[in-house]
Amino acid sequence: MKADYILFEPDVSTAADARLVVLTGDRPTGPLHLGHYIGSLRNRVDLQDTHDQYVLLADAQALTDNGDNPDKVVRNIFEVACDYLACGLDPEKTTICVQSCLPALPELTTLYMNLVTVARLERNPTIKEEIRSRGFERDIPAGFLCYPVAQAADITAFRATLVPVGDDQVPMIEQTNEIVRRVNRLVGIDLLPSCRAMLSKVGRLPGIDGAGKMSKSAGNALNLSATPVEISNAVKMMYTDKDHLRAADPGKIEGNVVFAYLDAFDPEPDAVRTLKEHYSAGGLGDSVVKKRLETVLQEFLAPIRTRRLQVSSDPGYVRDVLRQGTEAARAVTSSTLAQVKRAMGLPEI
Amino acid sequence: MKADYILFEPDVSTAADARLVVLTGDRPTGPLHLGHYIGSLRNRVDLQDTHDQYVLLADAQALTDNGDNPDKVVRNIFEVACDYLACGLDPEKTTICVQSCLPALPELTTLYMNLVTVARLERNPTIKEEIRSRGFERDIPAGFLCYPVAQAADITAFRATLVPVGDDQVPMIEQTNEIVRRVNRLVGIDLLPSCRAMLSKVGRLPGIDGAGKMSKSAGNALNLSATPVEISNAVKMMYTDKDHLRAADPGKIEGNVVFAYLDAFDPEPDAVRTLKEHYSAGGLGDSVVKKRLETVLQEFLAPIRTRRLQVSSDPGYVRDVLRQGTEAARAVTSSTLAQVKRAMGLPEI
Repeated sequence: MKADYILFEPDVSTAADARLVVLTGDRPTGPLHLGHYIGSLRNRVDLQDTHDQYVLLADAQALTDNGDNPDKVVRNIFEVACDYLACGLDPEKTTICVQSCLPALPELTTLYMNLVTVARLERNPTIKEEIRSRGFERDIPAGFLCYPVAQAADITAFRATLVPVGDDQVPMIEQTNEIVRRVNRLVGIDLLPSCRAMLSKVGRLPGIDGAGKMSKSAGNALNLSATPVEISNAVKMMYTDKDHLRAADPGKIEGNVVFAYLDAFDPEPDAVRTLKEHYSAGGLGDSVVKKRLETVLQEFLAPIRTRRLQVSSDPGYVRDVLRQGTEAARAVTSSTLAQVKRAMGLPEI
Repeated sequence: MKADYILFEPDVSTAADARLVVLTGDRPTGPLHLGHYIGSLRNRVDLQDTHDQYVLLADAQALTDNGDNPDKVVRNIFEVACDYLACGLDPEKTTICVQSCLPALPELTTLYMNLVTVARLERNPTIKEEIRSRGFERDIPAGFLCYPVAQAADITAFRATLVPVGDDQVPMIEQTNEIVRRVNRLVGIDLLPSCRAMLSKVGRLPGIDGAGKMSKSAGNALNLSATPVEISNAVKMMYTDKDHLRAADPGKIEGNVVFAYLDAFDPEPDAVRTLKEHYSAGGLGDSVVKKRLETVLQEFLAPIRTRRLQVSSDPGYVRDVLRQGTEAARAVTSSTLAQVKRAMGLPEI
């Protein structure tokens, strides 16, 4: 059996005859940040040249744990769409679509829910961990427990074969492939393709406080839409090596957030290597390294911010992108649903 | 607060200004039998003159515990539709529709699933009992656990205010009204109407073996499509009073299946009363009572069988009924879904 995941390789499709179909997306619960860029957005910008790529604004999934606050989800759909366009997702190459406007997805979800047991969902490691981290206990919404099934509906509806995810989401891909096998066995043909997780080669970007990964909820994020002042403040607050008290002392690279960001964003890796050597040996102050990082981040984010302002000041354009993407996605997903229902023998009225 | 249920009163709508909307239906997992007729079909024939009545062929719900056998469900859609028409449901008065062809229902289901906890579903007495009786334990399909939510989606999508159910289904109505209140509170207006269960005045019809209610799975049913020979055999096998060994002995009426059927189907209640007195006093043999019941059932079922043959030999007509009913139902349910999504602020693309 093929492994359920591969490492990120934009040119993986060249090995196969058909273009691989990639599905990714984000829960629109807040603005995207540098962690999203490193973890997925930049890969998407690469993938769109070589793959059929769908990017899902997963508002319906965001409602599974924001059921009592749809406003929060709804207002972020536009914001995240602007982030996408600002980062270089090209609507001519990538289909950007809104999940709640694709009725085939909940219909497939409810069909698949009959083929998955509650016990299996409760054993899903991602669900277990998220229940724990959200403090849900038994008060978990039914929609949240079933969201792996909804994700299987998303993936299969688009006939996606490659799904870029974080390593914590690999169990979701396994769950999807179980459902794929179950459906194919039930209807007696290989109707749905199985998929593979595509893991990013680089690790997660730490938060500016160095405490775990960058995340909005942890309050340690630097947004893609950050102003120059916000960028400057974030770099000032950034953790380095807490034992590196004087410039003359040797400093640690490992766990040093500033170097992690330089590794991720500095366009001159050789210069970063030299800086690291100097810092490790002693004689290089944090302020010098931070100054370089600030320049790098200002230069990196300036064109994104400009493009974002341009895009967000033309909401008609953003709406057109979402409308066209969603219409295209509706055609694909409805076609898959019709095939599944027909193969199950369900009536067409 | 209004009670969650009322007893069956076909003219209940005369008290209100608007016609009440009734939603009922059946899981198409087998032919309908006399138990369905007494428990619900005849009430529906009465209700269709005074109410806006929708009757749902609940194939999607039947899949929640027949996920691995869609064939069984699909082939019974046509059969149950024929039973409906044979019993006097009039497509001019009652909208007969197919659940799996109404995409608004799964979409509402997944929205509501975010507003109901797993713990609440596990506490639902109907679900608890059905998990027990089906031997599901933890291997319950996720769709089955969530079927009260799907039922709330059905009821609210049709804006039904009266739901004829068996008394074991009253917790489903309570669950629906909880969801109605939750949605209305969330969107800040009385968007969805609450509903009441309508309980049948008469008790359940026992199976021909007297062991519990008539049910297909118990093998003690007499189908509405039964042939004269099947009717005759069923009456012969029917339990009476096991201690009534000689005609001269006094016999018991309570628990006597033959009298239960005479009560349900004999058009002359006075004659049945006289028979009961005679039987209780002694001197009336089972064969005499059974002979009367056979005549009553043959006369009752003959026109239903004739009409059923007529209808089932014209599948184009049945398909037209289902198509027209389903189209009308699609309009109503899609409109409710659009209102709910709009009230939640979800995008319309």
